[in-house]
Order: sequence, then C-alpha cells, then structure tokens
Amino acid sequence: MTLNDDVLGRARVTDNEELKAFYAELETHEAGALWTVANDIEPWYPQPKSVPTLWRYADLRPLVLRSLDLVTGDDAGRRVVMLTNPERKDVSAAVGLLYTGLQVMGPGESMTAHRHQASALRFVVEGQGAWTIVDGQKLKVGPGDFAITPNWTWHEHGNESAEGPCIWQDGLDIPLVNAFDANFYEVHPNVYQEPGKVENWSLLTYGAGQLRPYGFGDTWTKPYSPLLAYPWEPTYEALRNAAKAIDGSPYDGVIMEYSNPLTGGSVMPTMSAHMQLLRPGEATLAHRHTGSVVYNVAKGSGHSVIAGRRFDWTRGDIFCVPSWAWHEHANGSDSDDACLFSFNDFPVMRALAFWREEAYPDNDGHQPV
Amino acid sequence: MTLNDDVLGRARVTDNEELKAFYAELETHEAGALWTVANDIEPWYPQPKSVPTLWRYADLRPLVLRSLDLVTGDDAGRRVVMLTNPERKDVSAAVGLLYTGLQVMGPGESMTAHRHQASALRFVVEGQGAWTIVDGQKLKVGPGDFAITPNWTWHEHGNESAEGPCIWQDGLDIPLVNAFDANFYEVHPNVYQEPGKVENWSLLTYGAGQLRPYGFGDTWTKPYSPLLAYPWEPTYEALRNAAKAIDGSPYDGVIMEYSNPLTGGSVMPTMSAHMQLLRPGEATLAHRHTGSVVYNVAKGSGHSVIAGRRFDWTRGDIFCVPSWAWHEHANGSDSDDACLFSFNDFPVMRALAFWREEAYPDNDGHQPV
Amino acid sequence: MTLNDDVLGRARVTDNEELKAFYAELETHEAGALWTVANDIEPWYPQPKSVPTLWRYADLRPLVLRSLDLVTGDDAGRRVVMLTNPERKDVSAAVGLLYTGLQVMGPGESMTAHRHQASALRFVVEGQGAWTIVDGQKLKVGPGDFAITPNWTWHEHGNESAEGPCIWQDGLDIPLVNAFDANFYEVHPNVYQEPGKVENWSLLTYGAGQLRPYGFGDTWTKPYSPLLAYPWEPTYEALRNAAKAIDGSPYDGVIMEYSNPLTGGSVMPTMSAHMQLLRPGEATLAHRHTGSVVYNVAKGSGHSVIAGRRFDWTRGDIFCVPSWAWHEHANGSDSDDACLFSFNDFPVMRALAFWREEAYPDNDGHQPV
Amino acid sequence: MTLNDDVLGRARVTDNEELKAFYAELETHEAGALWTVANDIEPWYPQPKSVPTLWRYADLRPLVLRSLDLVTGDDAGRRVVMLTNPERKDVSAAVGLLYTGLQVMGPGESMTAHRHQASALRFVVEGQGAWTIVDGQKLKVGPGDFAITPNWTWHEHGNESAEGPCIWQDGLDIPLVNAFDANFYEVHPNVYQEPGKVENWSLLTYGAGQLRPYGFGDTWTKPYSPLLAYPWEPTYEALRNAAKAIDGSPYDGVIMEYSNPLTGGSVMPTMSAHMQLLRPGEATLAHRHTGSVVYNVAKGSGHSVIAGRRFDWTRGDIFCVPSWAWHEHANGSDSDDACLFSFNDFPVMRALAFWREEAYPDNDGHQPV
Repeated sequence: MTLNDDVLGRARVTDNEELKAFYAELETHEAGALWTVANDIEPWYPQPKSVPTLWRYADLRPLVLRSLDLVTGDDAGRRVVMLTNPERKDVSAAVGLLYTGLQVMGPGESMTAHRHQASALRFVVEGQGAWTIVDGQKLKVGPGDFAITPNWTWHEHGNESAEGPCIWQDGLDIPLVNAFDANFYEVHPNVYQEPGKVENWSLLTYGAGQLRPYGFGDTWTKPYSPLLAYPWEPTYEALRNAAKAIDGSPYDGVIMEYSNPLTGGSVMPTMSAHMQLLRPGEATLAHRHTGSVVYNVAKGSGHSVIAGRRFDWTRGDIFCVPSWAWHEHANGSDSDDACLFSFNDFPVMRALAFWREEAYPDNDGHQPV
Repeated sequence: MTLNDDVLGRARVTDNEELKAFYAELETHEAGALWTVANDIEPWYPQPKSVPTLWRYADLRPLVLRSLDLVTGDDAGRRVVMLTNPERKDVSAAVGLLYTGLQVMGPGESMTAHRHQASALRFVVEGQGAWTIVDGQKLKVGPGDFAITPNWTWHEHGNESAEGPCIWQDGLDIPLVNAFDANFYEVHPNVYQEPGKVENWSLLTYGAGQLRPYGFGDTWTKPYSPLLAYPWEPTYEALRNAAKAIDGSPYDGVIMEYSNPLTGGSVMPTMSAHMQLLRPGEATLAHRHTGSVVYNVAKGSGHSVIAGRRFDWTRGDIFCVPSWAWHEHANGSDSDDACLFSFNDFPVMRALAFWREEAYPDNDGHQPV
Repeated sequence: MTLNDDVLGRARVTDNEELKAFYAELETHEAGALWTVANDIEPWYPQPKSVPTLWRYADLRPLVLRSLDLVTGDDAGRRVVMLTNPERKDVSAAVGLLYTGLQVMGPGESMTAHRHQASALRFVVEGQGAWTIVDGQKLKVGPGDFAITPNWTWHEHGNESAEGPCIWQDGLDIPLVNAFDANFYEVHPNVYQEPGKVENWSLLTYGAGQLRPYGFGDTWTKPYSPLLAYPWEPTYEALRNAAKAIDGSPYDGVIMEYSNPLTGGSVMPTMSAHMQLLRPGEATLAHRHTGSVVYNVAKGSGHSVIAGRRFDWTRGDIFCVPSWAWHEHANGSDSDDACLFSFNDFPVMRALAFWREEAYPDNDGHQPV
Repeated sequence: MTLNDDVLGRARVTDNEELKAFYAELETHEAGALWTVANDIEPWYPQPKSVPTLWRYADLRPLVLRSLDLVTGDDAGRRVVMLTNPERKDVSAAVGLLYTGLQVMGPGESMTAHRHQASALRFVVEGQGAWTIVDGQKLKVGPGDFAITPNWTWHEHGNESAEGPCIWQDGLDIPLVNAFDANFYEVHPNVYQEPGKVENWSLLTYGAGQLRPYGFGDTWTKPYSPLLAYPWEPTYEALRNAAKAIDGSPYDGVIMEYSNPLTGGSVMPTMSAHMQLLRPGEATLAHRHTGSVVYNVAKGSGHSVIAGRRFDWTRGDIFCVPSWAWHEHANGSDSDDACLFSFNDFPVMRALAFWREEAYPDNDGHQPV
C-alpha cells in the first residue's frame, strides 16, 4: 500500500489563478471543490488527533481531593476532574469520542438526580460507602466494582461513609453523542429519587449471568444490560478460573467483557468495558484496531507501549490508546497478577462495520521503544 | 368459545351412500375428503394424548440399580430405564415429543462414544464420580448439576467412583427429531474420545455468564451454549439471591432458566431447562401453556395439581405436564425450600410462534381437586 | 459410516427370561428399557414413513369438481380433497408433517370465517374470481398466484366469478402443529368478516420488497410476512431476470424463496415456499436434505426422480419429496420453461438446527432409475 | 423542562482566584474541571452547528459543468463540487456528519478505481450513460436511480454517452467515519477493475425484493445490501401503489425506505435513504427527530419549512435538515406529484439508541414562518 499522494487515484490538482477564482465562486454558494480536501478527509489510514496519554493517579488524587474544598456538589453538579487529551480539549475527550474523569464524594455527601442521553459507567478506585441510584434502584459499590448508568436513566450518587471520601472514574460517551447532535439533559423533577426497597436489586436478580430469571414480569426490551453492577470479586475469580483453561488473547492476556446477561452483548449500545488479567511476568504482543480505549489500572503495576512510546503504570493510573495505535501491555511483576480495567467504543465500531484489527508484523510482535 | 361441532364454521356433513362411494374413489387416488377429519385435526384446543404422570424415584431406583446386573453398558449402549407416557409408548415419549429416562453407571464403568442429531441433557440425581466427555471436553458432575450434550456432539459417560453407582436423568428430544424425520446417529470412529487437558473447561471459561471471555480465539457460532455444565451450588445461590429481590412468577415461584451466556437464549435450540424455588409454604397459582414439561424434584417435597389431579412428590421423583394442561405447585414444608428442576420444548414453541399461556380464571386461581 | 447394528456403540442385548420379567416389571411403572428400542428411535439416518407420491391433476380434478355437487361449503366448512401419503393417513399428512389438499369454490360461493393455530398457504391452479379475506384484508388471486393465511389470522374465501369454479391448492402445517399439541380453532363471532376498503392492501403497500413503507404507523411485530400475496407475473419475471445473471442451484435450477420483505426470512415461521424455473432442456443434479417438500407444477411438463423412482409430471400435478430422499428434476421440453411451485418445513429445520444437505455422490450426480 | 442553567442540578460554580489557580494546575496535568464545561457539553437538547441550507441546482449546475474544463478526472480523483454547511467546513460536512457533493463525468470519461472505509451512495440527477463498477459489478444508472457503494467495496465510475455529461449527487459518511478515526483508503492495484460479464447483476438477481434467490451459492454475510441499484421507475410505481392503500406519514407523505432485501434493514450500516411522494397539494405536519438528512428534489417543486425558515425548491435542488430541527414539506402543485429523495444517518441513531422524535405541538402542527 503506497502512502504517496502523488499517484493516479489520489487528488493532485495543481492550483492556478483560474482555479482559485473558481474556488472563491464556489464558496459564495456554500460549496467547494472536493479535490482540495480529498486526500485529507480520505486518509490512507486513520489519523487521530488524540495522542497516547497517561494520567498518574498520584498526580491527580491530591487535585481531586482538593476539589472537595473548592466547590460544593450542589454547585458543581458533579465534582469531577476530567481528563482531556491534549488535542481533544475542544470536545472534552480523553481519547476519540470518549470522555473520562475522576469524581469525588465526601463523607455523607450526595448529588442531585438527573439524566442525559449520554451513557455513563463507573469504575471505583477508592473509598467505602459509595452508592448510586439508577432509575430508582440503589447500588452499593466498592473498589474494583464496575457499574453502569445507561442512557436516559435517572441517576444520582453519594457516599454514605462517615469517614473518608470515595473516588471513582467516570466514563461517558458525551463527545460521541454530541458528534451526532443527539444529547439531551433533564434535572429530576423532585431533585432526588425515591430508591426502591431492595438494595442491589439487579445484582440479586441478574447477577448470575448464566441463569436467566424467568416469568417474574420483567420483559426487558431496553437496549442495555438489566444488570447494573459487576462487583470486583466474582470478576477477578472469573479471570483466575479462565486462566486455568485458556491462554487468553495474545494481545491482552486473559480478558473478559462485562456483558448484558440477556443478550451476551455489550452492557450499553455505545460503550463496552473489559477487565483483563496479565499473569506474573506476562508481556503481550502488539496489535492495533479501530476504536478508542481508556484504561484504569485495577491491580498491580507494569507498563504499556503505545505507538512506540512506553508508559509505566501502577494502581489507579489512567491511560488511553487512540484508534489504530499499536499497543502492548506488560505485567511488571514476576509474582503478582496485574489487572487492567478498560472501556471503549467497540460496540459502535462493530455496529457500523468499522472494526478492523491487525497484529504487529515485525520484531517478534513487539514495538521498538 | 363454543366447543360444539354442530355449528356453522365446523364440518358437519351427513354421510350418505353417494358420499361413501366418493370417499372410496378418493382413496384409490391417495386422497380423502377433508370434512371427514377436519374437526379432529383442527380441534378447538390442544388434545394431547399424553397424560399427567408421576414416576416415583422410590419405585424406579431399585429397577434402575437392578439393570446394572442385567445388562452390560457395552451391550446396552447406555443402561437406561426410560419413562414412557401411557399413550405415547409408540414414540418412546415421556410427554409430548420429549423423551426421558434414568441412566445408571456402576463404579469404574464407562460407556462408548457416539453422537446423534437428538439433543440431550442430564440432571444428576445421585452418586459421586460421574463424568461426561462432550466433543472432547471432560466434565465432572454431581447431584443437582445440570449438563448438556447438544445435537451432534460426540459424547460418552462414565463413573470414576470406586464405590457407588451414579444415577442421572436423561432428557432428549428424540421423538421430536423423529417427528421431523431428521435423526442421525454415528458411533465414534475410535469408540472412545481423547479428552482435552483441562477438566470442566467450559465451566472455567464461560461459567460466569455476566462476563464474556474475549479475544482468545473462540468465535462461537454454534446454535447451543458453549457452557456445558451448570453446577447446583451457584444455581441454588442465584435462586436464593433472587428471592430477596423479586416475588418471582405467580405460577412457578422464583424460577431461573439455564441460559446460553453468549446469547441469553436457551441452552439448545429444541429444549430449555429451569430450576425453580418454592419458598417454605409457597403454593403457586394454576396456569396452562402450550409446550410439554418434564420435572425432577431437586430438593424437598410437596405436590402439584395437574389437570385437576394431585401428585405428591419428594426428592428424585419425576413427573410431567402435557401441553395446555392446568398445573400448579406447592411446597409441602413450612420451613424448608423445595426446588424443581424441569426441561421443556419451549424454545420450539417460541421459534414456531406456538407459545400461548393463560392463568386459571376461577376459584382464586386454584384448580379444584 | 457402518449401518450394521451389531457393533459396539449400538444396543445389542440378547433377551432372556430374566430380562423379559424385568421388562414386564418396568411396564407396570410406565417404564421400559431403552436398549429394547434404542436402535429404532435413534436410526443411522432418517427413516420417514412418507413415501414419494405423485397425484395427477387429471385424476383429481374431476373428483374435486364432483364435490361441488356432493357437499355444500357451509356443511363441509371447506370443500377440500386432501392428499394423504399412504403411510401418513393417521395424521392426514401429504408428507412428513405437512398437509395439502385441493379446494374448490363454485361461482358466487363463499365460505365462513375462522382461524386456527395452523398456518395455511394457497397456490392457485385454475379459475378467475377467487378471493380471500385475511384479518379483514381482501385479496384477489388468480392462477399461479401464491397467498398466505398466517397462524391465527381470521380468514374466509370465495369465488366472485359468475362462470366457473376456482381451484387452489391448500398447504397447511396441521400435522406439525398437532405433533406439538398446539392447535387451536375459532369460528369468527360474526361468521363473516367485514373487509377493509382497499383490495390487495398488502400488495399495494408491501409488494415492492426492496422498498419498505416508512412512517405510516404500521410497526409490524408479527412473526410472519405483512405481504400476503405474491402474484405470478412478477414472480415469473424475477426468475427470468435472475436466469440472465446466475446459473442458479445445481439441484433446482433458478429458484426463488417467497420472502417476508421486512426481514428477508420465510413468509411464516413453520413453512416456506419456492418457485423454481427449469430452463428448456435443464436436468438438475440429485441431492437430499432434511425437511419435507410438496410440489405443484406451475408451468410446463417434465419429470423428477425421487428416491430412485421416476415421476412424470405436467401442469397442476402435485408430488412430494420426503425428508432425506434423493431427488432431481428435469424439464421435459427443449423449448419451453417449466416452473415448479413448492412449499416445505425448512424454516423449522433451520430454527431447530436440523438442516442437513448433501449432493448425490455417484453416477455424475444422477440417480439410476 | 426548564432551560435555565441557574438551577440545582446544573453546574453553577462562581469562579474565583483560587479556582482559577486550580484550573491552571489541572491544565498542567492534561486535566480540567468538569463544571466549567458541563452545561455546554450536556445541553438540554441538541445544539447542532449545522444550519438549514438549500443549494439551488440552477446555481450549482453551471459551476459543476465548468469543472469539466478546469480539472481532469485523473488529477481530481473525482470531479466533485461538494456542498458544505456554513459551520461545518472544518469537516467538509453538508449537515451533521454527512458529506454530499455533485459529481460530473464528461462523455466517454471514466475515473480510476479505489475503495475507502466511508460508505457512498449516488442519486442520479441528469444525463444518460452513467455507470459504476462496484466490486467488479457494472451498473448502469439514469436519472432518478439510486445506487450504493458500500464501505470498502472497489468502485469506479464513468459516462459512456457520446453526447452529454452525467451529473449525480454523491452522499458519503466521510465526516462520520473520520469522527471515529476509522477511515482507510486504497487505490486499486490495477487502477481499473475488470467488470463481470453481466451488467446490472445485482438488479437482475435481487431486484424483486419480495423474492429471495435461493441455493445459487451466494451466502451473503456482508453488512450491506447485495442489491446495489434501485431504479426510478419501480420506486415511483411503488409509491403510487402505496398511495392507493395508505395515508402515509403525517410528516412525510407516502415514503419508502430503500432496503436490503435480505434483511429488510437499511442499505448500509451507517446511512439509509428514502424516496417520498407528496401528493398534489399535500402539505405535511412538522416534526423533529435526532439524525441529519440531506434531500434532493427528484420531481416537482414546492417548499419546506425548516427551523421556522421557508426554503422553496424545485427539481435538482439539495437541502438539509439538521438534527432536532423542526421541518415540514409542501408540494407546490395542485395537479402534480412532487418527490423528494433523501439520505440520512438514521441507522446510526437506531443502532446507538439515539433515535428520538416528536410532533410539532402548536399551531395545528405547522411552524409559523
């Protein structure tokens, strides 16, 4: 595949005065000549503006905690330090069309209820006592737990601990929804929801995904998972079990996708999430694919090489892989597991037939750094 | 809905000599007059030949064990006492188009490998040490475990215990497959399979249904569940958890469908299976539906009323509910749970748009007995 | 594949007095020994009772017409000469679980309205003026037209011609629905339906299958085609067009499946229908598959070889191919097209994962006759 | 729904020096405070940058034709005047994430072959002799015809007329694919494709959508329609037929979606297209929905009111409706039909659960202008 634009089949018009006059006249009609932009808008391969970036939890945590004193939850709506890719600040994206941030709630604090067309997910980093009410259903979440707030569900959060703050990572598809001019927002008419009687209802009802509750009147037709929380313990256990049976992915180690137990599909139509296990000493091969990914280090430490650059990480660190960037991961320990949580826009890639993937072909599958 | 055939809209031709001659002539051409059979073949509502039947485990167990001495596994193929509905012996059906039987394997015994178009499932009743190899994958199963042998998978079974026999209930769709003239059978070319290295592979890999193993090279496209075994403990735990959150079905108590974790659908295209929990003292309401069901009492004791007749049951008993028969269940204990395992042909009812269900309208929802 | 039952892996128990006593005891408990029937109910390959059969229209037509005088439509319900396979008279099947018959309506005659769980289809053989009202929608049909009466739709028929009778072939899945104990029947409360204002509504609305009517308030969720009639002319034209582009099937010539334009699937969940074109002089190769088929010769003449037996056919003749029977077709003319209409239970074969197909391996793909 | 941001539930932090210092520190870590942008990125309802725009064919046509003299096809790649929304020039979009342009080919001219991840569609405006080769399949298209070039299919175009130029409208999802960093491009290794023997192959084979070609070896699994061209005549006839049967949409008149005959779904996963008929004198009601639309006036003249502004149109004019903008259409003639072709990103709206629609509530359903 030649990447030279000076070939038959690419636009290579030499501009002259007559053409410039033509372009000017086109502009008066809200028109233009395709050949002036064709090579830019139809690149040989993806040209993301997003760059590989790592945000150290050690750097962010003090800032996140400081925000507790700087703004009230009521004034901020949500007290979140968002992470923005250097070249994507215009759309508040961490990578591609994905937003992420670190949200903090002080002891006893609670936020007001709202809903939006954007879908949200949470990955809890630290603290005991965090809860969320999603469409009237109260969920308790702790470190390592993954929870979802699907599009247009009422939601509000809080921290019922008397002691310390709770910090979780938010992941949303705000830039994606905005790219399609499809976002909506509502404040809850009562400001706060009335939670249902049973805490963790969806976990009790749908938490054994291989068993489908039957005949109890819930004919679920919504385009997202009825299971709203995926606790850390059974997730880690599932990875450990699978590690006894399968080699896993050459690029990701043993990796599981949080799935909608009623369909086997992704938890929400725009975003999916994974938890992966890098066994002691494991270093994966490099590959690249369309779709953007945001990671959070759930356990252990190690490094990733992304687009030829090494990023060292430890628990709580967040980093991103832009679309079509080569990437590979390595557990830094020879004795302990490392786990990476991640979320992505792969469901969109697949729904729109944009998915493409390839292995790094050279150097035994590893990028030179 | 009138059930009288002597109405406009039903066949009500009075035969005479001319007609009889006409019928005789039709017969010489492999033809007949529809109106002579129309009311029979188009009944007002289903007229199953199958009758509600209960098989006591206390009766069957001695017979099953005696078969250990009467025939070898090699001679019998499989040593099974099959349960046949009084009016369905011609097709070896327990009810409708479903076959069931009790299979016994003596200590150290193993059966030869074969495959057939009919799908099979197992529900283990007693004994330690039972195993099955399904398409090269060895599974260990114990009491209360549910396992599947999907259509055309190689399979063989055995009992590796040194002590006692193992007894499980087989459920197959043999009469169904035969009704469509679609059955095939093959003996394994090597008589026995070579099992894979990892025991309970599918359970380790797919056993946490809300987590989907990803990127490990298994792109499952088969029309049945990759998860081949569903152990008793997590199943019972799931029912107990759900009982904290939901009322369950008014007709079945808290009931779960064993499901294909990759699709949320039934484990096989022709048969599905459930485990249901009747809470202490619980007596469900009566309903009826198309589709046939075979039950096995997994825990506790109680009774069911089927088509107006009471059947008392205790652990290990097997009973059936024919299509469109009213039925309701009651836990006989005020202190202990009762659990019913069952399998059915509901996936067919739904795929062919035959599903229909209604609540018993009178007498507060309970049949007079 | 050995077909010998005296091998390890098949049941081959030698009966003795002790076993006979055991069998007798089992019988008292509504039980039996699987090994006594295993080889029969699990055959090496399908063993249909149905035999290849051809019904000559020349033979049947006089009988069909005579029925006009013998019974009234009101008494007969429907005046139909049904075609029954010699070995399937017990279930009124033409082949497998499919029913067929020839229905006749005299000039000006109309039948009463009813509905049933069984699905019906019509293929018009002769006569002008036939109509059917399906769920209030009046359809006019003529020779070569195909129409459907999906399960549980109200329907009634008539002949508005002042001159001659109309004869069409009925195809129903009555034996199939009965095999599952799932049939229901209702007479229309008003005996006759009130037709909607627009004749051929579904044809006008959905008749250009590549164009989907949008936004007019019809959110179709029923499990069958909203298009109820498929006229002969565009069907034949589609076959002629396709013959310019594709070779077609080696076993069937150029063949089209009447499809649900909203899904691309079969017209009904239990039965599908085809029209196929055998070009002048064309003789197809033999193959076999699971699933039963009933044919009606729509155009031309020729012969088919079914299970090694030759059946010559001409327009209006009806014949059947049982499951797993080898079959091949030949156009008897070197100058004219021949067309075969057919209907089948393939949607069931596919939904239940029973579909299997193979080419005749010997003799250049043709059966010896 | 209040649209005031100064309420509990919206961000309303008052900045001060301490906060400004905090923001500055966040920025050094590629981070920011969500509350500074929250109300902007989570608007109460969509805030598209795209504005309703109409491009007059009378204005554009001379410019398009002049480009024939200004650049060669080989230099331009494709000789296209693209239409850009005033506020979306940065991404070369006509509206939302959709691109459109007018492509011209002189007599006897042909373009080189390439493929890209972006999907393309064509609506022919004028000229005889246009052709396109899509994955080796040559299609001839004339005025009113609609054709598709699905993602990653090889394609090239030409005009085999000896006389005049051909002009068609291109529609592509280039901005959409780029928004996801998922575009790829390749020049055909031989610069030109070798066309298959049969012209209009897909039209001959799949052009009668209610009939599915069967058993000829084409097991289509691609995520787009196998039917690549939808000629004007049967499309217009389908609309005229439907107008006899249905009222159509209150917002669009009688409207059809070009559909994939194998699935009933949209022709491509990212874009769908419609043709709608406004009967003489018909003026539709206003509604709005998520998703962007580009129209081309296929027949007649009239006007549309978009976001309260009136746009008069006649044949060949192109106009757009941004996401969530109120719009309604009126045929300007009391005697002749008017037809609007349009394409949109609705398949994305539906796949991602972004679809939302509402009727204009006031003023009898019509916007004041």
